[in-house]
Amino acid sequence: MSKEMEKNLRKMAKEIVEQIYAKKNPSIELPVRTLSNVYFDEDEKLIKMGDRTSSRTYMNMSHTKKFMQTILVANECKKIIDQGVTTSVRDLYYALKHTIKGTHENTFDEQSESDPIIEDLEATLNTLREELNLKTDRKGYLAGGIMINDSGDLINCRKMGSSGWAIPSNVEPEVINFEDVSADYVLVIEKDAVWQRLNEDKFWRDHNCIIITGKGQAARGTRRLINRLNTEQKLPVYVIADADPWGYYIYSVIKQGSINLSFLSDRLGTPGAKFLGLTTQDLTEFDIPRTVSIKLTKEDQKRINELMKYVWFKPKEWQKELEHMLKSDFKLELEALSAKGIKYISKEYLPKKIEEKKFLP
Amino acid sequence: MSKEMEKNLRKMAKEIVEQIYAKKNPSIELPVRTLSNVYFDEDEKLIKMGDRTSSRTYMNMSHTKKFMQTILVANECKKIIDQGVTTSVRDLYYALKHTIKGTHENTFDEQSESDPIIEDLEATLNTLREELNLKTDRKGYLAGGIMINDSGDLINCRKMGSSGWAIPSNVEPEVINFEDVSADYVLVIEKDAVWQRLNEDKFWRDHNCIIITGKGQAARGTRRLINRLNTEQKLPVYVIADADPWGYYIYSVIKQGSINLSFLSDRLGTPGAKFLGLTTQDLTEFDIPRTVSIKLTKEDQKRINELMKYVWFKPKEWQKELEHMLKSDFKLELEALSAKGIKYISKEYLPKKIEEKKFLP
Repeated sequence: MSKEMEKNLRKMAKEIVEQIYAKKNPSIELPVRTLSNVYFDEDEKLIKMGDRTSSRTYMNMSHTKKFMQTILVANECKKIIDQGVTTSVRDLYYALKHTIKGTHENTFDEQSESDPIIEDLEATLNTLREELNLKTDRKGYLAGGIMINDSGDLINCRKMGSSGWAIPSNVEPEVINFEDVSADYVLVIEKDAVWQRLNEDKFWRDHNCIIITGKGQAARGTRRLINRLNTEQKLPVYVIADADPWGYYIYSVIKQGSINLSFLSDRLGTPGAKFLGLTTQDLTEFDIPRTVSIKLTKEDQKRINELMKYVWFKPKEWQKELEHMLKSDFKLELEALSAKGIKYISKEYLPKKIEEKKFLP
Repeated sequence: MSKEMEKNLRKMAKEIVEQIYAKKNPSIELPVRTLSNVYFDEDEKLIKMGDRTSSRTYMNMSHTKKFMQTILVANECKKIIDQGVTTSVRDLYYALKHTIKGTHENTFDEQSESDPIIEDLEATLNTLREELNLKTDRKGYLAGGIMINDSGDLINCRKMGSSGWAIPSNVEPEVINFEDVSADYVLVIEKDAVWQRLNEDKFWRDHNCIIITGKGQAARGTRRLINRLNTEQKLPVYVIADADPWGYYIYSVIKQGSINLSFLSDRLGTPGAKFLGLTTQDLTEFDIPRTVSIKLTKEDQKRINELMKYVWFKPKEWQKELEHMLKSDFKLELEALSAKGIKYISKEYLPKKIEEKKFLP
């Protein structure tokens, strides 16, 4: 795959060289990555990027620096692909940062200048940064009925003790492959503490599944892995998160992608994912003591109202839940289930939800 | 070990019951955990807690609630030990939070009330929360010449692909044991991105070592693991961190423990650890381009001056480095080495430092 990327980068460079030889103003065509060029694809149920593009040209005072930075980043990506190594986005920034000869001008002053350029390149080359041999933050763990082949190292996720397999930044098929998959479904858990509870109770063994935590907002590697388990292995994906607007948003990003990375939704999103809980309606249903609920803040209320307007929260089940949350004026964390006993979540709550198929879309 | 803890908890409860039957004011003796009761032990080279204690008594308006909370937490710890399960400190908070019958008063309103009580219990029972079956945040990864036995699951850290073994919260010998250790030393790396670089370059194989990252300030599990590898396996420990006051502080916490958890220093600290780099003096020594250095902020300067006053930064090598940093008015991140090439850190910088034994104490 990175071979192909090398070709694309070379093509991009070649076009610019030709423009220069033709005495044209060198320019690169880039997709517009703002909210105005994002839409919800009702068929695919994914947040997608529209097809508007804009030109970044060399002979334009307000573009010149960014033009140079784009070429520098593209060139460095080609270099690391040629060397067959990968690097972090922070290392890339440092590798490129220097004072331009004969001036006092730096190529980059902050990493916040190189990161968006990497996203520009991803969008224009229709690729993942991982395929440009770039690594991002990783977090997230997995345990359950699957064997991972990581560049030849076989990792049996049924035998990973208390910690589970750490999901790397790059989970593309050149590095990560699935073997010996026996699980029936994937359970994604917002919080690591809850994942650890389920791992200790060997929930994945008793219910023949794979448990994954993203530790809060899931990193790209984790989202991509969920997507691959769903599309390649045909495993259903269920999500549990806090009953608050942030938990619901985390779910929505796993399901239909994010506005910010809309150009990657087809690789990072899992439209078939279902929401298992927690909901504020569970409070009565599961007889959770009211003392462990938390009053909504002004910020929560504002955020709930925002969520209610997103197209992907329009299904009536979600509107009902969000209205219920606003009306009853409380939120709930997954840990609230501990008030019913430490093993309540793995022995009562989840089995009942899964058996009765009580999902939100 | 948790059996022993159960006994200690029972003893604590028995004393209180006896006080009640004797019509005395029930009270618990707790070590004072403030800066005033902390000292640097010059022999052991560890930050230690002094022996001052104070009483928490029931019949004292300003103690009553905390007294009750202490008993609740101790009771819950005994319960989870009896059940043979572990739980997170957040779950513990939720399990205990309720409105006291006949009042509008909650046992706990915030987790920030239960967390310090857990530390009180750790200090008074001279134990780790992990031995009370409590889990904290985990982060940190390991790869290299060692096999981990996690409750019977054998994890070969030479075969963990791109992600390494995820270090769990509880690394006590009841759960985690070392087998087949072939490494000569342990290299602790502040940043995960740098760890990933070294793992990709198989630095641990070429240099026959174990590489560990704490991902910033190391979590308790990671610090405890480093301590165990050093004390039990007699492996020397070297640390690399950013050349800034925060990186140096991270090193010092690994080496001599922290003020906050001074009562745990003998289990979490590794006084034999050595600092390998980065230093601001490396800039000239390794000919690092000045453009990748970062000017000190006012906060950096303040923090450097604080560090210079800590007893454990008094060795002349540290005073010299801290003065040099102040005088030259810049700091350096580990990633700055990338300016000399992506593999520079693993192929040039570290081998040279290790060969020439250029350590700071």
